[in-house]
This record gives sequence, structure tokens and C-alpha cells, in this order.
Amino acid sequence: MAILVHLPSFMATPITAALREAAPDIPVWNGRENAPADEVEALLAWGLRPGVVPAFPKLRLVCAAAAGVDKLLAAPDLPAALPVTRVVDPGQQTGIAHYVLATALRHARALGTYAEQQRRGEWRRHPGRPLSRCRVGVLGLGEIGSAVARTFAAIGFPVAGWSRGGKGLPGVADFTGDDGLAALLAQSDILVCTLPLTPQTHGLLNRRTLSMLPAGAYFINVGRGEHVVEPDLLALLDAGHLAGAALDVFSKEPVEAGDPVWNHPRIEATPHIACDPSYELVAQQCVENLRRARAGQPLLNLVDRAAGY
Amino acid sequence: MAILVHLPSFMATPITAALREAAPDIPVWNGRENAPADEVEALLAWGLRPGVVPAFPKLRLVCAAAAGVDKLLAAPDLPAALPVTRVVDPGQQTGIAHYVLATALRHARALGTYAEQQRRGEWRRHPGRPLSRCRVGVLGLGEIGSAVARTFAAIGFPVAGWSRGGKGLPGVADFTGDDGLAALLAQSDILVCTLPLTPQTHGLLNRRTLSMLPAGAYFINVGRGEHVVEPDLLALLDAGHLAGAALDVFSKEPVEAGDPVWNHPRIEATPHIACDPSYELVAQQCVENLRRARAGQPLLNLVDRAAGY
Ligand SMILES: NC(=O)c1ccc[n+]([C@@H]2O[C@H](COP(=O)([O-])OP(=O)(O)OC[C@H]3O[C@@H](n4cnc5c(N)ncnc54)[C@H](OP(=O)(O)O)[C@@H]3O)[C@@H](O)[C@H]2O)c1
Ligand SMILES: NC(=O)c1ccc[n+]([C@@H]2O[C@H](COP(=O)([O-])OP(=O)(O)OC[C@H]3O[C@@H](n4cnc5c(N)ncnc54)[C@H](OP(=O)(O)O)[C@@H]3O)[C@@H](O)[C@H]2O)c1
Repeated sequence: MAILVHLPSFMATPITAALREAAPDIPVWNGRENAPADEVEALLAWGLRPGVVPAFPKLRLVCAAAAGVDKLLAAPDLPAALPVTRVVDPGQQTGIAHYVLATALRHARALGTYAEQQRRGEWRRHPGRPLSRCRVGVLGLGEIGSAVARTFAAIGFPVAGWSRGGKGLPGVADFTGDDGLAALLAQSDILVCTLPLTPQTHGLLNRRTLSMLPAGAYFINVGRGEHVVEPDLLALLDAGHLAGAALDVFSKEPVEAGDPVWNHPRIEATPHIACDPSYELVAQQCVENLRRARAGQPLLNLVDRAAGY
Repeated sequence: MAILVHLPSFMATPITAALREAAPDIPVWNGRENAPADEVEALLAWGLRPGVVPAFPKLRLVCAAAAGVDKLLAAPDLPAALPVTRVVDPGQQTGIAHYVLATALRHARALGTYAEQQRRGEWRRHPGRPLSRCRVGVLGLGEIGSAVARTFAAIGFPVAGWSRGGKGLPGVADFTGDDGLAALLAQSDILVCTLPLTPQTHGLLNRRTLSMLPAGAYFINVGRGEHVVEPDLLALLDAGHLAGAALDVFSKEPVEAGDPVWNHPRIEATPHIACDPSYELVAQQCVENLRRARAGQPLLNLVDRAAGY
């Protein structure tokens, strides 16, 4: 029995340490070089290049070191029957909700405009925007979207959400399906994407759908860059249909110097920092799931391979 | 019976209209020029130059067109027995709480740092700050301070507050007195001032008290500029003891172009916009209190002249 950590080094080092702490009895290998091919039963990863999974024939499960599993599931040689789990971290959900709230409130209270005035030394007050004109629409009402929706509702914003099944969260109006998406978009002054990336959600936010937002709407993306057709978003910002956007995720990360999203005056761009999961929790959930897999018990936070999340 | 509106014109015009709407039977005068000296029974004002109150001998009450009454009470010729009321507006309290939250979250999530990186086209992630290191201290737990404290508590921040009497709000630790102030300051990573301006609170935040904050603390002022000894605040920002400040109120408003608070890189300065009360409510509460004063009934939102708030 062994766990293989297959992650970029900035994550691999602390997560390897956390695994050893969580399970001193389980050998943990940081990087595949010397990892014993016939002992590794759990693989902890974020993305997977072809060839990694087949090299470990005793694998019982693959643990995503994140909430999103799109990069993992993209591996072409991941057997359909191999269980994939992901991280569910309430602290991460709160952190993402706070990021979204920070950007939404800055927009709603025109603090960017006041910052510009400050640079000019200009004292000028603008009429406030009532909460009834700050209707929040949340795409995806999973662990993260629910936390975002609940947070806005708790502080008085009108909130609606879009999911496959509808969630019945208190104070959050449910929308489902294509018609539901159109209806939600038409009433979202602040649109937040917390969807997982799947074939169904790839490119969902494009010229057609973003145009359905009310004029002056604000868009916040903490899902994945590929949910958005970036040139369409830029065009709608330039045309003035959208007032602005806060983007934490991008179709190509890291964003390179000179990329138009860095330079756009109406985009607030952050380097995928809305919130990481706690490394301790990543390690604990991996260890727990390896124990469960060996004991033939149901795994925690199992990904639905057919649905893709 | 008449109401005299004695306000800067940007407020006077909408509030006069709202008064006429709220009480079509009561004559309303916008400005004192032609107001009949022996008919005015209520004065709706923000500040009062000497001579205004004595000119209206039939005055039953002075209604502040705001939550704070410091400018009104500063009038030297305001009889001690004349009732003064103020505005209590739940919508304003929510608005101020949202302003405070916006600035606090931007600090807590380092979004200003990321905005600077964005200008340089730099993708660099920083470790997040845990909520346990975002302890919020709220000075004043009145209508506004309570709303601020409740809002932070609702979204998971550790919160404490300072008041004269202690309030027993759920999830908000109480501090009182001088010792309580020192103890609260020592544990406030984010300090929010929502105090009323009184002789006791004037200059409360100075080099001595601000130095009691933990290194790297953030200060948000939505009370009054005079709560702060501004040169002391600037010195502590420059020395790096404070990480930054969001200031919505200033000892001299409007702040003039060239003032150091406009130019300070660690100050986010806004032109007293945290939130105005609704003009409709200002008008309704004035009309209601005039009716009550005439009927000899207790007034709403009566100011304690001895306490000064
Ligand atoms: N920026 C960051 O730092 C960061 C950090 C972590 C995660 N993320 C992103 O956040 C995503 C969501 O995470 P999570 O933990 O909230 O996921 P989750 O719990 O699996 O929730 C996914 C939600 O999306 C809905 N959904 C999925 N496909 C849909 C479709 N075709 N139509 C309508 N609704 C659909 C689901 O609906 P049902 O409820 O009906 O199934 C569910 O409500 C991750 O996949 C990742 O991309 C970003
Ligand atoms: N920036 C803006 O846009 C804006 C808008 C509106 C108002 N304001 C400011 O906000 C202030 C507060 O408004 P509010 O409606 O919350 O007032 P409030 O309801 O009268 O509450 C005042 C609070 O301050 C506490 N306090 C007063 N003197 C104190 C002292 N010496 N030591 C300790 N605590 C003391 C009181 O303690 P007790 O509860 O024990 O009495 C009370 O909790 C206003 O006066 C105004 O200056 C700013």
C-alpha cells in the first residue's frame, strides 16, 4: 500500500507532508520517479498526463487535490471503472464566497469609480444602487455555489441559482434547464459562475448567453476559464453591455503578460486565488478514501464519471 | 403648523418633495427666507448655524436628516430642552454594513495587491489569510455598529464590539470602558469605527490607541472624521504598523484636491457615501415626530442630549 503524490511542487511538498502526518503507516511518494509500480494504490493529482495511470496497475482510486476534476477526467487513459474522488472543504467554500462577495460589493457600491476619483482628488458622490437592482444569479448550486448563494442571501441580496436538479435552498430561487438559464440570465445584475467544467458547460457563457444579461450587469467567474468564450466577454465589455467582470479563472493559466484580460479597464483579474482547499483536508480525505477503498466501503466525495463532476 | 427644511440643496429638494408627499396637509418651506417665523414647528436639518433656531420661537423639535447629530448639537443656541431626533433607517444600516464588508474583504483577500499585479501583468499567488487572523473589532454597537457586527458574524468572521453598556449580540464579544477598548484594539485585525461623535469619542483614535492594534491591522472609518487624529493615522500607515485604511469620513469634508489622504497609497478614500438614509424615511420620521410632539406623545429616535447621541 502506498500513495503517490503527482502534483506541481508548490502543492506537492506541503500535501506530502500532510499525508505523512495524517497516516504515518502509509508510504507516500512525492513524484513518480522512484514510486514502486506495484504498491501505489492511491494517486493524488490535479491533472494527469497520459501514461501515468497505466503505470500503476494496483491503483484503487484517484483523488483530485481540488474541488474541480475537469483536468483529471481529461486524461485519455483513465479507466471508466476507476473511482475518482474530489475535495469538499467548507473553509474553501467560505473563502470563495468571500472572494465573490468582495468583488460583487465593490461593483455594487461603485468603489472602483471612487478609487478613480481618489486618484484625481475628486470629491463627488453618486446615487447608491438599491439592493433590488443587485439581483444575484449563481450558475451551479453545488458545494461552492450554495455557499455563495447563502452568503449573498444572508446579507440581504435577492438571489437565484441554476442547477440541474433544483436545490430548494432557503431564500434562493431555483432555475433549471435551457429556459431556466435564459430566465435567470435576464434577471441577473450580478452573475456568478461556480459551475464545474463538463462537456455541457464548456463555452456556456458566450455572446448569445451573456447578451441575455441586463445592460450594466457584472460577471464574476470562479468556475473555470473554459466556461467563458473570452473574446465574446471582452466584446460585450467593450460594447458597454456589461459593466465589468471579476475573473479568477482563465482558459489558459497562468495568464501571460500582455494578455488583453490583464489590461482591460473593466476586468478585475486574479491568479486563481478565490480559495484553495486546505492541504490538511486534501490529505485526510485521500487517506480516508484509501482506507475505505481497501475495506470495500463507499467513498467520500465520489465523482459521477458520467456527469463529469 | 409648518416644517422648515434647512439643508444643502442636493438634499433639500428631494426631502422637501418627500415631506409634501408624506404630509400634504402640512406646509413645508425649503429654506428659511420666506418661512413664517411663528408657524414653523419642526426644523429638519443636518448642521445649524447660530441664529437659525432662535428665529423660530414655536419650534417643537429639531429633526436631524441623518443618523449622526454631532453637527446639529454643535449649534451654540440650541435650547437644552428642545427635543432633537435623528433618522434610524435599516436600509442605511445594511448599506453601511455592505460598504464596510466590501473594504474589509478587499483587504482580507489582498485584492489591492492583486490589482497592482494585474497592472504589471504578473501572475503570482499569495497564501490566503485564515479567518482566525481577520478578527473584526467594531467601535460602537448602536444601530449601525450592530448591523456591521451582525453582517461579519453572519459570514463567519470572529467579531467583537465596544459600546458603553455592552449589547449581548449573538456571536459578538462585548467590550466596555477604557480597559475594554485597549483589549479590543489589541485583538482587532480589522477595526471599524461606527461611533457617534461626542466629546468622549472626539480624537479617540490617535497614535496611542492605534498603536495598540496588532501589526498589519486595517482600519475602516464610517463614523466621523474627528474620531481620528489624521496625522497620527498617516504616521502609523507610513511606519507600516497599519496595513491600510478605508476612510469614508474626514475631519474636513469635502476633502480638497492635494490632501494627503487622497494621495496615500494605503488609503482607500470615499466621499462620505457609505450610505445615506432614504429621503422618504427622513421625511416620514419627521412628519411622524411632529404629529407626536403636537399630541404630547413620546418621540421616535430621540437623541439623549446629555450623552450627545
Ligand atoms: N476559483 C477557484 O479557486 C476554485 C476553487 C475550487 C473550485 N472551483 C470550481 O468550482 C467548481 C464547482 O465546485 P463545487 O464543489 O461547487 O461542485 P459541485 O458540488 O459538484 O456542484 C456543481 C453544481 O453545478 C451544477 N451543474 C453541473 N452541470 C450542470 C448543467 N449542465 N446545468 C446546470 N447545472 C449544472 C450542479 O447541479 P446539480 O446540483 O443539480 O447536480 C451542481 O449544483 C469546480 O468544478 C471548479 O471548477 C474554483
Ligand atoms: N459614513 C456614513 O455614511 C454614515 C452614515 C450614517 C451615520 N454615520 C455615523 O455613524 C454613527 C453611529 O450611528 P448609529 O445610528 O449606530 O448610532 P447609535 O445607534 O446612537 O449608536 C452609538 C453606539 O456608540 C456607542 N458609544 C457612544 N459613545 C460611546 C463611548 N464613549 N464609549 C463606548 N461606546 C460609545 C453606544 O454605546 P451604547 O449602546 O452602550 O449606548 C452605541 O452602541 C453616527 O453618529 C454617524 O457619525 C456615518
